[in-house]
Amino acid sequence: MLDTERPVAILGAGLIGVSWAALFLHHGVHVQAWDPDPEARDALEDRVKAPMAQLRQLGAGADRPGRLTVHGELTEVFSGAFFVQENAPERLDVKHDLYRRFELHAEADALIASSASGLPWSRLSAQMDRPERLLNAHPYNPPHLVPLVELFCPAEASLARAEDLYRRIGRVPVRMKREAVGHLANRLASALWREAVHIVAEGIADVEAVDLALVNGPGLRWAVMGAHMTYHLGGGAGGMAHYLEHLGDSQEGRWSTLGTPRLTPELRAALIAGVEAEAGGKSIAQLEQERDAALIGILATRKALDT
Amino acid sequence: MLDTERPVAILGAGLIGVSWAALFLHHGVHVQAWDPDPEARDALEDRVKAPMAQLRQLGAGADRPGRLTVHGELTEVFSGAFFVQENAPERLDVKHDLYRRFELHAEADALIASSASGLPWSRLSAQMDRPERLLNAHPYNPPHLVPLVELFCPAEASLARAEDLYRRIGRVPVRMKREAVGHLANRLASALWREAVHIVAEGIADVEAVDLALVNGPGLRWAVMGAHMTYHLGGGAGGMAHYLEHLGDSQEGRWSTLGTPRLTPELRAALIAGVEAEAGGKSIAQLEQERDAALIGILATRKALDT
Repeated sequence: MLDTERPVAILGAGLIGVSWAALFLHHGVHVQAWDPDPEARDALEDRVKAPMAQLRQLGAGADRPGRLTVHGELTEVFSGAFFVQENAPERLDVKHDLYRRFELHAEADALIASSASGLPWSRLSAQMDRPERLLNAHPYNPPHLVPLVELFCPAEASLARAEDLYRRIGRVPVRMKREAVGHLANRLASALWREAVHIVAEGIADVEAVDLALVNGPGLRWAVMGAHMTYHLGGGAGGMAHYLEHLGDSQEGRWSTLGTPRLTPELRAALIAGVEAEAGGKSIAQLEQERDAALIGILATRKALDT
Repeated sequence: MLDTERPVAILGAGLIGVSWAALFLHHGVHVQAWDPDPEARDALEDRVKAPMAQLRQLGAGADRPGRLTVHGELTEVFSGAFFVQENAPERLDVKHDLYRRFELHAEADALIASSASGLPWSRLSAQMDRPERLLNAHPYNPPHLVPLVELFCPAEASLARAEDLYRRIGRVPVRMKREAVGHLANRLASALWREAVHIVAEGIADVEAVDLALVNGPGLRWAVMGAHMTYHLGGGAGGMAHYLEHLGDSQEGRWSTLGTPRLTPELRAALIAGVEAEAGGKSIAQLEQERDAALIGILATRKALDT
């Protein structure tokens, strides 16, 4: 339960903004949403329904959901809000304009968190009078289900306030010590996919086999335990120290055998044909629905194990 | 239910052998186990109890478990067995000797599957009269819980028989088109860990933050959907084709920014201190127990979703 009746503001009512709105509402936080597009504004109340229904399946929401209001004026949307989640397109000029207006019109104690995935904090904050009011808070798709929020901000007080808020809406905020392209999760995902593509390129296995191996092998285990901790256990009773002493050199050797594929036209065609075979005629919407149902099931299981 | 009363033979009663024995027994298959070490033989009946109890939590076993017999003579262990799972130490001379004795003493229709992780099929089979009787069938730790079995063998008939058997004991066999060091799963795990180590080496985030991001972000999602399929969904309604057209080049660019760290003494010390901080005083045994409980929960959830 949040100890305040003050609303949060959501800037941008696209996919990410809708997810954030649903999350805050589910946890009883009032949401004031803004979008420059009248169609996006009109659709918002309807579009939060599906993610809110999924969140109700997961439980742990507030006794009553927050109240949603939709605004066409930025000055209105900031009114009373103690926190702003910005989900504008990934264009620096657009973001800078929003931050300027935030500094002009928002409440003096308000923070603004950008969902930006590709623009680093230093560039996002470059034109602000008080850059310590801005955080980069990158969610992971689908944001209302996947708990991770990657945080970067050099100001400890802003970080602490944002972490507190995100934890209250069931998120797992993770701090970066410095900004980096791709944050943590997209770097890890990109590194894994590079090798997954390399395996296909080298004819070691086909697309579907690689995915099947991941979901029934390391992926399953990474839903439970991180990569570093897994190698700690890989060292037996001696843990990571033992692992590195005995297998560190051979791991370095293996790293040198991993590939950096070129996405040639032939390889692209093989990847497209491979996922189409794997999808077996299912549409993207069907695949998303199945993914979400499985995520909800696993999250509920993990929550039950934690308590 | 297996359509045969014939037993399988397990060679080597270490960690992996114990897991295989528990799996076969749980699914009603009789197991004849051999180990050259009398202590390992004496301990086996006791050591299968814990993994069998975990498998009972998962359900889906046979009405009654298989019968376990333990042998000190190789000629005995092969008697009547239609399938042999070999879990000897990763030494080629030891394996070659076992395969020679398999060819001398095993039933004429029996296959032998090696759990070898680091030795390729071509070297494993090099001294056999009928190499098509050998498969590489690599499980993933902990093998009785993680469903993946990575298969390589050039003989279609042997593959089909092994796949049939592994599916009957709840495994997910995945075929490789050609042999490769690290098979699929260890290549993917190694590629991901390389970047996870790089992130720590570069001071982007600490060990615990990387693990937290993985378990609450991409790792969680990879328990549900493979890496290739995830990028298919990342392309929206246009799928992988749209993704590659619009973001293929930038993904190639990101690949070039990923790192290949050197495991210097300083970095090793940071990894060891990091996992120790993350473990928070928990022993390896405690961490394994928590991992297994979470794996059992997630596997049960996935099974319920499939039915």
